[in-house]
Amino acid sequence: MSLDGFVAGPSQSVDNPLGIGGMRLHQWVFPLKVWREMHGLPGGEVNESTEVVEQSLANIGATVMGRNMFGGHPGPWNADDPWNGWWGRNPPFHHPVFVLTHHARESLELEGGTTFAFVTDGIEAALELARRAAGVQDVALAGGAKAAQQYLAAGLVDEMEITLVPTLLGSGERLFDGVGDDLHGLEPVRTVVAPNALHLEFAR
Amino acid sequence: MSLDGFVAGPSQSVDNPLGIGGMRLHQWVFPLKVWREMHGLPGGEVNESTEVVEQSLANIGATVMGRNMFGGHPGPWNADDPWNGWWGRNPPFHHPVFVLTHHARESLELEGGTTFAFVTDGIEAALELARRAAGVQDVALAGGAKAAQQYLAAGLVDEMEITLVPTLLGSGERLFDGVGDDLHGLEPVRTVVAPNALHLEFAR
Repeated sequence: MSLDGFVAGPSQSVDNPLGIGGMRLHQWVFPLKVWREMHGLPGGEVNESTEVVEQSLANIGATVMGRNMFGGHPGPWNADDPWNGWWGRNPPFHHPVFVLTHHARESLELEGGTTFAFVTDGIEAALELARRAAGVQDVALAGGAKAAQQYLAAGLVDEMEITLVPTLLGSGERLFDGVGDDLHGLEPVRTVVAPNALHLEFAR
Repeated sequence: MSLDGFVAGPSQSVDNPLGIGGMRLHQWVFPLKVWREMHGLPGGEVNESTEVVEQSLANIGATVMGRNMFGGHPGPWNADDPWNGWWGRNPPFHHPVFVLTHHARESLELEGGTTFAFVTDGIEAALELARRAAGVQDVALAGGAKAAQQYLAAGLVDEMEITLVPTLLGSGERLFDGVGDDLHGLEPVRTVVAPNALHLEFAR
């Protein structure tokens, strides 16, 4: 999130899903060895963000995400449509992913253990499916902003990790837009100062 | 500033200048010994915020503030008007304060060395007057949001201290509203984790 509260810049599109300037919010993660490994790249550095990223990935048994984060597909799905989202043949999840959408579609099974299932009956249904798939492990809410807003407003978030980046985007998509004034018991439990990033961890 | 970017809650008025919920943004400061001393009160605690507050008060030779922060006076000044802002007979500044306003008024000289001068010809004129009054010392920009926004947008801020409070206000007055996407070279130089407050210090 930028200092002025945006998690994506203005003019988001299928071609530019982070919006103008939105990539600035992610610059802290690209140099990290843990991120590069996850994407099959060599090298990289270890810094204060490393442990935060490692912990965010640990013990996750399923992921929920919004349709735009899956791939910004603009219309009804089609069995012949080659579009599999941004994530390529071997996405970095390696567990079941549940995508919030208004358009039903057959599940996708990709390399490396990642499946994408498309849930059309709302955030609670998606969470329940993810909980069952995760078993004793945790469910991650990956984003984007609209999915996060809905789960936050409904009080369904047990832990929240905000990475605050010292930049302004000026406009775009706000993380807390429409969430109201209630954090539903989420309280700060840890703050990590890292290069180009401040990690704010909340739990209840 | 709240986690969702507000420095005052909704429905600000002369009777409730911080807006609904806005007082939550200041709860971290009231228990502090340094704050209580400044307001002539005994006791209080010392914690991680103490040094931040002390440094924010040190070496200040003049202060600039917006009209609403001075006292929210709704109309033209009147020589017979007893209204002297929120600050009482002995305000905690003890140096010259320059108030941005559209309504000319005679300067006020109060107890303890605080003067209020009313500047009607804009933020740069007020800054120049404050610089001259401060001499070798620093000029503090006390707020409120609209004054901060104007100085930030004009690139006239050399240091910025944001106290982020882990709460949501949902609506109200945003610190960075209309500031754009340029911090004019302000970069994070220090982060202090304190009870109910995260102090983010920027400088250029």
